[in-house]
Amino acid sequence: MDIIEQIVSGDVRTIARILRDIDDEIPSARDILRRLYRYTGKAYVVGFTGSPGVGKSALVDQIAINYRKAGKTIGILAVDPTSPFTGGAILGDRIRMQRHFLDPGVFIRSLATRGHFGGLSKSTSDMVNVLDAAGKDVILVETVGVGQDEVEIANSAHTTVLVTIPGMGDDVQAIKAGIMEIGNIFVVNKADREGSRQTVRELMNLIELGARRRNGGNWEPQIVETEATKGRGIEDLYGAIEKHRAYLLSTQSEWREVAEKRAGIQLISVLRDQAFKTILKRIEECGDSMDEMVRKIVDKESDPYTIVQQIIAKALK
Amino acid sequence: MDIIEQIVSGDVRTIARILRDIDDEIPSARDILRRLYRYTGKAYVVGFTGSPGVGKSALVDQIAINYRKAGKTIGILAVDPTSPFTGGAILGDRIRMQRHFLDPGVFIRSLATRGHFGGLSKSTSDMVNVLDAAGKDVILVETVGVGQDEVEIANSAHTTVLVTIPGMGDDVQAIKAGIMEIGNIFVVNKADREGSRQTVRELMNLIELGARRRNGGNWEPQIVETEATKGRGIEDLYGAIEKHRAYLLSTQSEWREVAEKRAGIQLISVLRDQAFKTILKRIEECGDSMDEMVRKIVDKESDPYTIVQQIIAKALK
Repeated sequence: MDIIEQIVSGDVRTIARILRDIDDEIPSARDILRRLYRYTGKAYVVGFTGSPGVGKSALVDQIAINYRKAGKTIGILAVDPTSPFTGGAILGDRIRMQRHFLDPGVFIRSLATRGHFGGLSKSTSDMVNVLDAAGKDVILVETVGVGQDEVEIANSAHTTVLVTIPGMGDDVQAIKAGIMEIGNIFVVNKADREGSRQTVRELMNLIELGARRRNGGNWEPQIVETEATKGRGIEDLYGAIEKHRAYLLSTQSEWREVAEKRAGIQLISVLRDQAFKTILKRIEECGDSMDEMVRKIVDKESDPYTIVQQIIAKALK
Repeated sequence: MDIIEQIVSGDVRTIARILRDIDDEIPSARDILRRLYRYTGKAYVVGFTGSPGVGKSALVDQIAINYRKAGKTIGILAVDPTSPFTGGAILGDRIRMQRHFLDPGVFIRSLATRGHFGGLSKSTSDMVNVLDAAGKDVILVETVGVGQDEVEIANSAHTTVLVTIPGMGDDVQAIKAGIMEIGNIFVVNKADREGSRQTVRELMNLIELGARRRNGGNWEPQIVETEATKGRGIEDLYGAIEKHRAYLLSTQSEWREVAEKRAGIQLISVLRDQAFKTILKRIEECGDSMDEMVRKIVDKESDPYTIVQQIIAKALK
């Protein structure tokens, strides 16, 4: 069996290896991704996003269990943009693997993007494609924080679940209003804490506000209260996800729109990444040294704008 | 007076206009940035980062007041990557402007990057350069979330302040360990809440852990407990920032290292951005339509990897 067949047949070790190669930006991974692409398109992708500490991992694990009960195979990608500095991702994987240890129907991977300077959303799309081609029915993507890359990752899911907890909302309503619009489902986790009803009410107001801005689409965002660690509300959340999926599937135009949105995000991500790498390679071929450019900037002999203009012109000549 | 002289002399309306042009990616802004660059390098840049709801804005405003008392002029940049979807940034500016309304020594701007797909950190660097050239003594940059772009923004400050609150730490210690290493100062805000001492202890452990990994540098990260809304602990935080500044200035090699790190980040950001724009422009000149590419991907006539390979090859021919 060649590597494509191994991945498509769901071979865990081969999948793990290709994901590692993507993370390490091994050039041969790109060719494999290209050949795998025709096997994608069957998985349903659910994105979970929210600040650190709101309990996303526990929610994702619980939802995974529900999908397993329904006989679906699962891929979990936990995107932790901070992990280049740490061994946290590997540690996290180990802890979570123990929970699903005996279940070959769950594949878990924490994404520890080593590459700084962007590329996070691209790697995630690539990895989703691998798990999709590998036959996972449902892919759960978990992103830390509310950064730009994270918004993009959330946007490239079929269903986006926004997770918050009581008492975090007070002074950030104005800011939050922004990210709220990407959520199809809102979860108030740790709902046993004081202020949960208040947070739900605030979310309802934000949804109403957002409804006026939304153009097209008849989906009314759902709000679910959960206590992930106790399993409370998980059935409701599972139901809400499945309801959103049924909604998308029921209207062919919305389904197509989501597919186009996802393809567009991936196209631009890959293009952005490759444009940079292509030009960087040409700069290296020109023999220019980054250290020398940095020195010139620090010593005020030049500035980043002029230098970039010069090296791009030279690289593309 | 030409536009450069107006900015350098601190003209508020011209500064506001160039910042807006940068945000809107008006091409002429690049030329102005290039010409402004020689006036930069005098400002001290302090980055504040942390999850939504931890009270960064209140802290930044309080620190601004302290610097004002010391006779320094201030620029505040609040980076809110979620605001493309909303009017939140403008609203936030209005609220905050009222607080410093009568003080011409404080310039506040919320960065509502409209451009999705990266570029957040570049715009921020560009705007810091403008405020630096405009003669602001201290520039306070506030970033929401812990995304990759935000880490980069935090990294491009002289002093990075990491803000958290009690009770957010429990289940994310492993993850947090990563971002902790970029912090020069750690703030536990809302320190009146239960568990503040516990959070301080956890931070102390993380710092100790991080110390073993750090290569070079003798700065021992400081931990400060605050209640920003009551002004408690602000003097301590102000003192810690000034102590870090004095530390950097006392060792020429560290100061140089920070300058090189900042220049390197900016160089790569500008390069990444311009590489993408240059190639995008060439693609457009080739007459290729993005919509048609997206359609081909959705209809499985091609895949993003092949398409990107083809259009880059064609664009650079």
